[in-house]
Formats: sequence, C-alpha cells, structure tokens
Amino acid sequence: MNRVKNFNAGPAALPLPALERARDELVDFASSGMSVMEHSHRGKEYEKVHDEAIALLRELLGVPDSHEVLFVQGGASQLFAQIPMNLVEKGRTAEYVVSGAWGEKAFSEAKVATAMLGGAARVSCSTGVGEGKEKSYTRVPRPAEVKVDPESAYVHVTSNETIHGVQYEVDPGRPFPAPGAVPLIADMSSDFLWRRFDPARFGLVYAGAQKNIGPSGVVVVIVSKELVARGRKDIPKIFQLRTPAENRSLYNTPPTFGIYMIRNVLAWLKGQGGLGAMEQRNRLKAQKLYAAIDQHASFYRSPVERESRSVMNVVFRLPSEQDEERFVAEAKKRGMVGLKGHRSVGGIRVSTYNAVEPAWVDELIAFMGEFARGA
Amino acid sequence: MNRVKNFNAGPAALPLPALERARDELVDFASSGMSVMEHSHRGKEYEKVHDEAIALLRELLGVPDSHEVLFVQGGASQLFAQIPMNLVEKGRTAEYVVSGAWGEKAFSEAKVATAMLGGAARVSCSTGVGEGKEKSYTRVPRPAEVKVDPESAYVHVTSNETIHGVQYEVDPGRPFPAPGAVPLIADMSSDFLWRRFDPARFGLVYAGAQKNIGPSGVVVVIVSKELVARGRKDIPKIFQLRTPAENRSLYNTPPTFGIYMIRNVLAWLKGQGGLGAMEQRNRLKAQKLYAAIDQHASFYRSPVERESRSVMNVVFRLPSEQDEERFVAEAKKRGMVGLKGHRSVGGIRVSTYNAVEPAWVDELIAFMGEFARGA
Repeated sequence: MNRVKNFNAGPAALPLPALERARDELVDFASSGMSVMEHSHRGKEYEKVHDEAIALLRELLGVPDSHEVLFVQGGASQLFAQIPMNLVEKGRTAEYVVSGAWGEKAFSEAKVATAMLGGAARVSCSTGVGEGKEKSYTRVPRPAEVKVDPESAYVHVTSNETIHGVQYEVDPGRPFPAPGAVPLIADMSSDFLWRRFDPARFGLVYAGAQKNIGPSGVVVVIVSKELVARGRKDIPKIFQLRTPAENRSLYNTPPTFGIYMIRNVLAWLKGQGGLGAMEQRNRLKAQKLYAAIDQHASFYRSPVERESRSVMNVVFRLPSEQDEERFVAEAKKRGMVGLKGHRSVGGIRVSTYNAVEPAWVDELIAFMGEFARGA
Repeated sequence: MNRVKNFNAGPAALPLPALERARDELVDFASSGMSVMEHSHRGKEYEKVHDEAIALLRELLGVPDSHEVLFVQGGASQLFAQIPMNLVEKGRTAEYVVSGAWGEKAFSEAKVATAMLGGAARVSCSTGVGEGKEKSYTRVPRPAEVKVDPESAYVHVTSNETIHGVQYEVDPGRPFPAPGAVPLIADMSSDFLWRRFDPARFGLVYAGAQKNIGPSGVVVVIVSKELVARGRKDIPKIFQLRTPAENRSLYNTPPTFGIYMIRNVLAWLKGQGGLGAMEQRNRLKAQKLYAAIDQHASFYRSPVERESRSVMNVVFRLPSEQDEERFVAEAKKRGMVGLKGHRSVGGIRVSTYNAVEPAWVDELIAFMGEFARGA
C-alpha cells in the first residue's frame, strides 16, 4: 500500500495505527463474533468503548469535575444553533467575536435561533476587513478590542479559523478573551486535542471530530455543569444539553462506530505522549512551514498577521492562481494531497493535524523550495 | 472467526459482505492511499460514494422525481423535533397516531417543538391500553379509527414499533392511513428497505440507519419537494429540510463513513435481488417464527394481535421472567444473541432484519422447540 501524505483540512488524516486497529477487528470486535457497528449501544461491549473514549478525553485534556464531556451529532454547524437555543434566555443577548468564516456562520445561525426564542445575538467584535465576497480576515482580535457587556448570555469565539488560518493563543499576545463572569464559549473544531488548555476558563467548548479526534459525525462538547443546569427547558429534549449530560450521551443511539474510532485515536494519542508531546511536534511542523514561506518571500506570501498564524492550518498564496494550481498538481504527483485552499478564499492550505507526520511536512517544505526556485 | 447469530434490534446485524468490503479497503480506499474516512467530503472520491448511495436508494425504493432523498444526522429522535419545526406553521396542528413507545416519543417532542413556534400537536388516535408504566400496545389502528382533520399540518405514524412489535401493512386489513390531502408522515426506522412501498403516498418518511440501512449516525429522509418548499424559514438553517435538499446533503460535513457503509449495504441488497427478494425472505422468516410461537402456545405467547404482527421485530413472552432469562442465556451459549426484549417491556424480541440469515432463524426455531419441551 502506498499511503499518501494527506494534508486535508477535515475530514483529515487519521493515525494509521488507529485505522489498522479498526481494520483488524472490523468484522469481529473483541472476539465478540460481530462488528462494533453491529453491537447494541446498550450492551456492555460497546459501553466499555464509549466510557473509555470519555475517560480518555477527560484524562488527556484534564477536564475538571465541574465540566461534562458529551458526544452529540449534527456537526459543529448544528451546535451553532443548539448552543444559543440552550443558553440565551428570553430578552438576553449573546455576543459573537468573529475572526473568520466559521465565526460568521456561527453568528448567522445564532441570530435565527435566538430570534425564534425571544433572545438576540450580536457581533461585538470582528476583525473582518472589506465587505461581502471581498471580506478578509487576517487575525484574531487583540485583547483590548474585545469589550464584553456583563449582561450578555455568553461570548462566542472560533478558536481557530480553518479557512483563514488564524488562531488564538499561539502567540502570548493573542490570548482568548477573558470576559470575567460571562461564560466564554469556543468553537474549537480545528483547535482541539493538540495542546492542553484550561477547560475551567470556558463555559463550553465544542469540536467537530473530523480534524484531530476521529471521523466525521460526532461533536465533542465540554460544558460546565452550571451552564447545563441553566439551559432552557422549553426546547425539544433532543436539543437540550442536559439530555446527553444526564444520559452519558446515550439518550438515543449514538454514532457508535465514530465513537469507537475516537477511542482508537485517543489511545494512539496517549501512547504518543499525550498533548504535551503533540503540541511540541505540531508547533515545530508549523514553524518550519512559516519559515519556508518567509524564506521564499518573493514567491510565497502568508496573508496572516504573524501573531495570529495558525498552527493547525497554514495558508499562503503564490504569485498567481495559475502558480497555485500548478503547485497543487505537482505536489499531488509526489503523493502530497489536500493542499488546495478553501473554495471561498483560494490559495494553498496545509493542514497539520496530529496525524500529519513531521516527515510529510519536511517533504512538502523541500518541494516548496524546489517549486519556488523552478517557477 | 466465529460469527454469532445476531438478533439485535438496532444497531443490528449488517451483511457480512458489506463489512468485509469495508475491512478490505479500510486503510486504502479505492487505491487512493487513504481511508474513506480521511477523504474530504468535497473530493470526487467521496462524492462518488455519496451519490451512489443516493442513487441506489432511489432505484431500490423507486423514489419518484417528486421526492428528495436526504441524509441527515441526529437519529430519528432528532427528526421527532425537526419535522414539526419545519412543517407546522403558526396556529396549525399536527396529528399523531400512536401505536407504541416510539410514537409516544415522537409526539412528546412534537408538542414542545410546535409550542416553541406557535403551533400545536395532538394525538388523534392511540391504540394504547392502560396508563403510565402499565400502558401496552398490541396493535396498529384499524382504518376506521383514524379520523383526520383536513386542516391538520400532517398525520404522523410509526410504521413499525420496534419495542412493541406491531407493524402497518403486513396484513391487508391494517393499511397505512390514507388522509387524503393531508400529508402522511411515517417514522420507518425499523420498517425500511425490506419491501417496496409507494413513496408518493407519503409527504415524508424517515428512518434511522441502524436497522436495515447501515451503522448508526445517519437518518435517511424521503420527502416531497412540495413539503420542502413549504417548510418554515424562521428556524436555523441546519434544521431546515431545504438545506440538505439544496445541497445534496453536503451542506456541512456528513458522516462520511456511515454513508459509505450504507452504499456497501445497498450494493449487497441489490445483488441479493433487491426489495422483492428481501420481502419474500423476511416474510418467511417471520411466518416461521410466529408459527413456532403458536405451535407451542402453552409455553410461548405473542402479545400482538395477529393482523398487526411485525415482520421485523417478533416479540413474545414465556411463562415467567425466569424462563425468559434462561431462554436468553441458553440461546447465547449457542451463539444466538440480542434476544432480550426492550428494558421497558421485557420478554423476548427477535429482530429479523435483512442481514439476519434465514438459517439463523431456523436454528433459533429449533432451539425454541427444544427449550419449550425441556422447560
């Protein structure tokens, strides 16, 4: 088998040992005579996997007892609606800090979800420049830009913008907002499980699995018990966060195979030395990539302000779109795929999630040098 | 490998060839050098699988052009809320025909979802007998019992009650309601893809995958374009049925591996001769099981009225709970698992989905005879 070097933005590369483990027991899980997909979610074989996945998340991330770890469905896009439905009471307002396309989407759904239930949502800070299709984002906000109304239901940030390649807290000068008593909520879909953070600083964080956690179809939510308890009860049960919280995320049938794969990925991650080792490895991959961009500054150009440069999604431009197309095509010939920037912004995007091997990045950097010289 | 005889109610047995296909290409899908889980949902490799799954559903079920075929997340339990959110306008009422536990749940969520948006839901017919925990369901309604208000937003039925083992249209005297101009909506989770039905009779049908379709985490929705167009626009985009309808179910990242497995199952089903062959095979399995129950009438007892007896979930009781426990334990020793009835009703439940081999059922029937004689 010729495994390609997969730089996809998500669904993304998964650790080979986690996949091989799934393959080896796909038809006969734990000598049970059936696939893990065929097990009842109420049976002890599956429940063991389910509980192990939650326990590993708690352990790797250091989740305190004050917070729940939940699996929900629908993707982060569903949480865009579900969070305000739970947490914005009648007459209250949620604040959105927008630093890219995903923050825009989260706000747009929050507007509808809150209007539906008698609340409101507003953008209290945006780093966007320009209007409409020309709008661009090149940074997260500086702390002084984020002014929070103490009456707000919560403040929402997108901790890493996968499309625009801007990320909080890579540079010490660009920390997450600290809104005091107002709960901080973060979409961490592409910023999850590669470094430690203090979950107690957040009222809620959520992350679609298909970057660092596992296959698509599962969202991990870490939420304070206090917020769960405060959640609205006049919305359907399936959307209330207390429903998974009170039922170990087994209220209805969960995506069992997805959670099984998450368990495999987490077991691999622990074996690699956990988040400390992963952060070192990932920071180094990103540093090398940005250094290569800067080294060939007449050819490659990062649109992102230095302090906001993402460790997870390194985006850059070439002199022309034709150059970019050739770059992607040439790289593909060498077994490097998933380098095309998001269709809404173009350019090149290198996603460097946990399962992306440092050797792949080294190979890509060598190619970048060659391509810049030859172009 | 010693494959067990899996009678689980869902997640349930999957066809071995569909699983083996997944295993064989788990790490290297279609010689692409990566797993299908690692492919972008916007890439041509995955999109081919996605489109093939939809095309096979259309073909096998004979879905007319008037109807969309959608993949959504969250399980049928999410559709319990999402359907009324889409289809009950302010001031209107949806009707629920309840013939078991799942119908009760669907109604319960519809009550909240409609109240939230200025509509209402009511039970217009129930076959339940008794109250509270003692409530039992032993049949679907007779046609004359279902009286539909022509002003209703829709009429909702549960076409097969997995827990209570009652099913519509197994007997010609127990057809689906025919509410005229009022759209008929059916939760077909455990009644899907084993026989043909005319989708044009329904405004919407939906089915959680984890019975006859594939692994958990995907719901298949077949909905008339007219209903999609009429859907409310004042609810979050992610919950509007027009969102998957307008985006080929690719608005946000779908559960790609689940849909890939559905494709594998559908390809197997087509190879088996499609729904005609499957219906014959399944009806025969169920007939044999009910005959075995009736043959040992002093020991086994079906609580379900003859005309409502489910082809998919055959439930029965033994003289005592101890007998039932022994039955389950003895069967397990012989490699037959998943026979325990749902925790809410007890007893024995034999689920006979498509992937349950006729030979397994024959073996179970032989055991039933032996057990009855020996008890």
